[in-house]
Amino acid sequence: MKRINVEKCASILKEKDNILILTHAHPDGDTLGCGFALCRALLKAGKKARVICADEIPKKYDYLFCDISIPDFEEEYIVAVDVATEKLLGSLEKQYAGRVDLCIDHHPSNTGYADNLLLIADAAAAAETVFKVIKAMRIKVDKHIAECLFTGITTDTGCFRFASTTSNTYRAAAELIDLGAENAKINRIMFEQKPKSLAALERLAIEGMEFFCDERICLITLTQDMYEKSGSSEEETEAIPALTRQIEGVEIGLTIREKTDGTSKCSIRTYDSVDASKLAKNFGGGGHKQAAACEFKCDYKEAKKILLDKCRETLESGETVEEDVWE
Amino acid sequence: MKRINVEKCASILKEKDNILILTHAHPDGDTLGCGFALCRALLKAGKKARVICADEIPKKYDYLFCDISIPDFEEEYIVAVDVATEKLLGSLEKQYAGRVDLCIDHHPSNTGYADNLLLIADAAAAAETVFKVIKAMRIKVDKHIAECLFTGITTDTGCFRFASTTSNTYRAAAELIDLGAENAKINRIMFEQKPKSLAALERLAIEGMEFFCDERICLITLTQDMYEKSGSSEEETEAIPALTRQIEGVEIGLTIREKTDGTSKCSIRTYDSVDASKLAKNFGGGGHKQAAACEFKCDYKEAKKILLDKCRETLESGETVEEDVWE
Repeated sequence: MKRINVEKCASILKEKDNILILTHAHPDGDTLGCGFALCRALLKAGKKARVICADEIPKKYDYLFCDISIPDFEEEYIVAVDVATEKLLGSLEKQYAGRVDLCIDHHPSNTGYADNLLLIADAAAAAETVFKVIKAMRIKVDKHIAECLFTGITTDTGCFRFASTTSNTYRAAAELIDLGAENAKINRIMFEQKPKSLAALERLAIEGMEFFCDERICLITLTQDMYEKSGSSEEETEAIPALTRQIEGVEIGLTIREKTDGTSKCSIRTYDSVDASKLAKNFGGGGHKQAAACEFKCDYKEAKKILLDKCRETLESGETVEEDVWE
Repeated sequence: MKRINVEKCASILKEKDNILILTHAHPDGDTLGCGFALCRALLKAGKKARVICADEIPKKYDYLFCDISIPDFEEEYIVAVDVATEKLLGSLEKQYAGRVDLCIDHHPSNTGYADNLLLIADAAAAAETVFKVIKAMRIKVDKHIAECLFTGITTDTGCFRFASTTSNTYRAAAELIDLGAENAKINRIMFEQKPKSLAALERLAIEGMEFFCDERICLITLTQDMYEKSGSSEEETEAIPALTRQIEGVEIGLTIREKTDGTSKCSIRTYDSVDASKLAKNFGGGGHKQAAACEFKCDYKEAKKILLDKCRETLESGETVEEDVWE
């Protein structure tokens, strides 16, 4: 693995053609925004490129799709965007593990699985870095590319709210708006509007909130039964974990989801005092300092016990957050 | 009334001393951010200045207060910030109506009550304009001033989410962060953390949501009974109106509050298709295109009927939004 900078990344991409872009499973706005922005930029530069994802892309991201028809081609160069580990490729891992030529990412936890790695860890979103790469390639950022990149930035910062948001993030947003990104439209689609089924699920989630450790831990459990009652589904629950952090005094917010196969998955949200990615790492997961996730083979009741024990231990140890780059 | 520009405003303020700054009643982050930023800037320039407000300032704004001790003085020059009409001065109206020398505002509905008016209507927050004025006065924007101004901008844009947010808004935010504003801290205080009492009130509000006109109207009623049940109070309800707009398909979100004296107050939130300030104007209120408010002398049940009738009429007329500068 070789660490490269923006200029080197741009010059490599300029030389390549027939480029396959991999996004991570359970896709979010950043991986998709990066993927479709880079794809369109490469197409505009006269190259062949396409984006793939292991999972279905939620309907709300429809506007990211490129209107340029994408020709068939056999991939010659493989790029992963916003993908910290090969495991996050989901069902694509089998086919592409060990074959990724270039990775553009912002997770300090990136495992260095690609031949070339462009990692800017203080970027709030990988899209900030893809923006720099496209500019370094001297490809004109059109409205479509600007909207893809704005989507990546706004979703990965919770609409410019998270601690990861820097003045550079705001500046990139300003530039993208001037390049045509309709910020209000995108923020509305990503953050404001929710189907009634999700509103119903949120209501059940809030009703069932539990508090532990002098209310320093807030826990939401999402069961299959709750999805059924609300007419909602797991795909819709992206915004639920944020609810756990909202209550004054809460330092760790946990959202445990019961999966259809009886196993469980947990989203962890924290404030400055606790490192979410460290917590998740205990269970083979990962993420950022204030937002991370991990999976459990056991059911949600068992997962809840295991997690709460570790969270209690963390709060009692009084361990503070430090820069923690995984190997 | 004379319309003035930023430079003129700066040169007037440079000449004045013993300046009283008025903020609007039911103060929000923009009026307070403008007030305290301007106050500190004037103090730094060696002048005497202080900020007053008709109502108590909610505790969450504590960090806006200036640590420079404010000398006693008799006011010689009166400035209003983010105050669209004298009526909005609340209980201070009696004392200061007809006496305001300068107003810095961004409401197109400003009635022109001050001798000099600096009105930049396409600024998302009045704080954007106060920022320009302080720079034009060549006063160094320190961390405290930057945090006041950032607070004004982020609160009036719903954390950079509303349609009013432009690339200039993002650029001002970037500049203020570089000048020391701790964006993550401020956004957390303003948008993330809520007391359990408010969470309880929100739960009641969501449970009681009503829908009208094929679910194009969503209505929340907040009664004194609900405040009591949740342990919350009217001062805490600033964020409730946003809940009405969140449901997919809703074009008008209404939040009716029962006041202690039995009268009622309504917050109106809309999307592009409906002009909230026009709706509010029917009842003597005002505000912005997507967020406005009005008051009723009647109880909330009666107010609900009157409001719903007008909203139905508006939706049925299919009237579209146009630039509407009030006289």
